[in-house]
Formats: sequence, structure tokens, C-alpha cells
Amino acid sequence: MSRYETVLRSRTREVVIGGSGPFCVIGERINPTGRKLFAEELRSGDLSRVGADAVTQVAAGADMLDVNAGIPLVDEPQLLQAMLRAAQDAVEAPICIDSSVVEALEAGLSVYEGKALVNSVTAEDDRLELILPLVARHGAAVVGLANDETGIPATAHERLRHVRKIVAAAADFGIGPEDVVIDPLAMTVGADTEAVTVTLETISLIASELGVNMCLGASNVSFGLPQRHALNAAFLPMAMAAGLTSAIMSTAEVCVQAVRAADLLLGHDPWGASWIAAHRARVAAEQTAAQQAPAAAP
Amino acid sequence: MSRYETVLRSRTREVVIGGSGPFCVIGERINPTGRKLFAEELRSGDLSRVGADAVTQVAAGADMLDVNAGIPLVDEPQLLQAMLRAAQDAVEAPICIDSSVVEALEAGLSVYEGKALVNSVTAEDDRLELILPLVARHGAAVVGLANDETGIPATAHERLRHVRKIVAAAADFGIGPEDVVIDPLAMTVGADTEAVTVTLETISLIASELGVNMCLGASNVSFGLPQRHALNAAFLPMAMAAGLTSAIMSTAEVCVQAVRAADLLLGHDPWGASWIAAHRARVAAEQTAAQQAPAAAP
Repeated sequence: MSRYETVLRSRTREVVIGGSGPFCVIGERINPTGRKLFAEELRSGDLSRVGADAVTQVAAGADMLDVNAGIPLVDEPQLLQAMLRAAQDAVEAPICIDSSVVEALEAGLSVYEGKALVNSVTAEDDRLELILPLVARHGAAVVGLANDETGIPATAHERLRHVRKIVAAAADFGIGPEDVVIDPLAMTVGADTEAVTVTLETISLIASELGVNMCLGASNVSFGLPQRHALNAAFLPMAMAAGLTSAIMSTAEVCVQAVRAADLLLGHDPWGASWIAAHRARVAAEQTAAQQAPAAAP
Repeated sequence: MSRYETVLRSRTREVVIGGSGPFCVIGERINPTGRKLFAEELRSGDLSRVGADAVTQVAAGADMLDVNAGIPLVDEPQLLQAMLRAAQDAVEAPICIDSSVVEALEAGLSVYEGKALVNSVTAEDDRLELILPLVARHGAAVVGLANDETGIPATAHERLRHVRKIVAAAADFGIGPEDVVIDPLAMTVGADTEAVTVTLETISLIASELGVNMCLGASNVSFGLPQRHALNAAFLPMAMAAGLTSAIMSTAEVCVQAVRAADLLLGHDPWGASWIAAHRARVAAEQTAAQQAPAAAP
């Protein structure tokens, strides 16, 4: 359980990260990185997949959506605005505006209707001084990455030092700890067998010392390995037990189900009410499909 | 990583719980509790299912097998002996001899060939004094349950007190900490929303203070809830991250895969060698099946 509630809003819907509530699933899919066809479509001005991916991910259980427009040599501020408009028109879920380009974050915030999660700032002085005033001015919340210009620290205690700096800097700009969501950084275990252990230790330290909400890119852990969904599905409950309260992640059924199972196990779904309701809905859908199948046959 | 290695042996095979090695999956299935047909077969002297269940569970990834003969009004020592003989004849995996009846444990140990895991003793004085000498005499290892005659403690610290007592009593009988495997007790989350949280805290405390190996009945957590395998598959990685080194559990694919994924994530499968090998074997088996399918068609 985190000490704070981070409230995000779309035009019509409010989502809370943390407190005693369930984990916040942030769909990772609206991101052209590693998606060649999607990148080509976006480059040519075809945004149809943005809305489609938004609808699919929300149907699969996403509470929020990450939107990223990072394509080399495009006008990222303009593209991000167009993608945010398309996503907002398609679904009610609040959005995590994802860019490393300050101008793109600014352009995105200017078209976002609600309270966005801005992804991200690091512990680098110049980034903090550029991005935090922007977040404060728009009344948004911000993701803070536990690294600085020297790279990603190898130990949990070094990462914690960056986190303290980000939380303090945010306070200086009038952003309270409830609106700082820390990314403890998940690296791939295929490149470093200690990667996940360090991430879990970082999560535990942040939870016990600061109690702020946390969000990480969960799919990173399995990069380069086979059966990635199964690895991600095992990683998420571990990270949740350590104190993680949200993730930018795949909405593959096995991953979302692992999160909802962990919610129940950790007491964030009292008496399994949501778990049992989801099970009943699935059984009902299967029965409907089974009844319709023979009638649909020629 | 636990501080000790618990070595178990069958006639021909050695299995290690703990150290830096992978998690030890102990198949739960050879147990008549809640299996009406199996109980009837055993009662009538038909032991065919013991061997079949042993083979199936080992094929599904079990490193060891639990064998329990607890049927009301049967001669449990005699039945347990027969079941142990059948299981030993069917597979090479070492066995966890499971009974609450001291005479049955004694009878089981007398026919077991190798170094067994005796399941279990509690922190009750009379149980410790009856069972530990038996374990010592047979050179076996023992599962110690973190409860006493007053029931299962609600808090992790109270459970730890029982664990300290068991480890100390074992030492008095010449059984070192490497041969004491503690059951931190997993209760169903359907009856108590704090159940899993307390179990995870107990595991962490035992791991940091005593460093002994641990084993629990993982399927208990999901009792009475739908989609039990999915809940168990989310629970196991959490418990492993906290320090659990073995479990008596279902060998359903989703559960075993969650354990092997967690092994990789926690650095107990360096560079994913086992994970990748299992993936390749699965792909090869699927290809073989696909090639044979058309030929088998009429």
C-alpha cells in the first residue's frame, strides 16, 4: 500500500494510482518504438491504429494508456498532439504523455483534456528545471526516473538518492509527493542476472522510505528472451508485493490476469470481488459464444 | 538465496533445495484429500493411480513428489508404505513423506530408499520429541510448520518464534539447519485478505534471520476462489522473491512456468539457460506434433 493517491483524469473519467486501491495498468502499445508498420503509418499521417489500439487495450483491462510519438526525424510535438487527440476521442481512459522531448510534452499537455501523467523527468538538474514547471503549470502528475546524466545506478541505494532529489525538486515547484510517480527502472534480466533483484530492492526502499507511487516499463525485464509474456506475468506480482503501484505494460491476458491476481492476493481486491466478477463475465462470454457458434455455421 | 542446501535423494537421484539453485517444485497430487475417486481406489487396494500421477507430475516439471495417505479409518502406515513403494518404482524423483501420524512417518521412512523429506513436525513439544529422533535416525530432512498447539499465529513475528524453537530443537537432536525446511504457512486469501501479506512477511523474516530453506502448500492461498491456477501462478513468484525455496504445489503448466520464470528473474537460472532450453524443447515438440498430425489423419 502506498501512502499517497495519485489522481489522473480524462475528460470524463478519474483513475487513482496507489492508496489501498488496485494496481494501475497503463497500456504500452501506442508507441512506435520497435513497431515498424505503425511508425510508417504515423509518418504518413495515418492515425487510425491509435484509436484501434486504444480501444483494444482498454477492452483488455488497461486503466490508462501511454502515448508516445518518438519517431526519428518527425515533428514530434505535432504528431504527439494528433495522437493524443485520436486516443482521447477513442477511449475514456486517462493518458500518460510519453516523450523525452520537452517541446513535445508541452504540446501534448496543451491538447490534453484532464489531468495527465507526464512521462518523464530524470534527476538531471536541467531536466528538472525544464519539465517540473511545465507539469506544475498544467496541474499534471509526473513520472520521475531514478537516473541522472551519469546513467542508471547499479544499486538500489544510489537510485534512491536520485528519487529523493526528484521528490524534493518537485516540492520546490509546488508539486506534492502525491503527484510524483517514481520509475525505479526495470532493466533486462537477459543482460544482467541481478537486474530484477536490484529493481525489486529499489521498489522496497522507495516504498518504505518515501511511500510515493511507482510506475515502470515492465516489459523491459524480458527483452531478448523467449516467452516474454510469461516472464512479465511472473515479474509483475513480485514487483507489486515489493510496493509497485502501476506499470506501463502489455495488456496480454496473462499479464493483466497476473496483476489482478496479485491485487487479490495483496488485499487490494477485498474478498476477490473484482476477481470473481471478471471470472463470471468470462464464463458468460464463453457461454454466449458457444451458443452462437452452431447458429453461425452454414 | 538461502544460506543452506537441503539435499534429498531417491535411489538414483539427488535434488537440492536452496543455495543458489532453482526453486524445488514438489508435486502435490498424490494425496487423497479432496480426491474422492482416488481415496476409494486406495481404500480398495488399487494403487495404479499413484504411479500414473507420479509419472505425470515429473513430466510436467516436478523435482520431487509429496506422498500422503491420509484417509479416515484406513491403516495409514501400511497404505503409506505401499504408496511409497509404488511411487519409487514409477519415478526417480525424491519424495516428501507426508503424514500427521507418527507411526505412518516411521513406516514410510522404513521403506524409503534414499534421503526423504519428512512432512511434518510443528513447534509442539510432544511432536518435536516424537518426530525429530525419527528424522535423525533415518538421516532424513524435516519440514517444520510455524505453528503449535494453540493454532496458527496471526503475525509473522509470532510464527518466527515457533520457527526458532523448531530449528533449536532439531539441533538438539543432531539435525542441522540445512536439514530443516520451514513451512511459513499459506492460508487462503478468500477467508482473510491479509493472509498472503502475513505469509510473505513471515518468509522474509525467516530468510533474513535464519536463512533456512522453506516449503509451503502453495495451493492453499486460492482455496474457494475461481481460476485457482492463475492465483497460484501469481503467488509463487511473490513468495520466491521473498525467499521461499520450495513448494508443494500443482504442476499445472501455468504454475510451473511461473516458477521457472521467477527462477530466471531472481538470478537462479543464469542467462536463462534452462528457460531457453525449455522453450526450444516446447517448440520442437509442437513442430513434431504438427508434422505428425496430417499423416495421422485418414
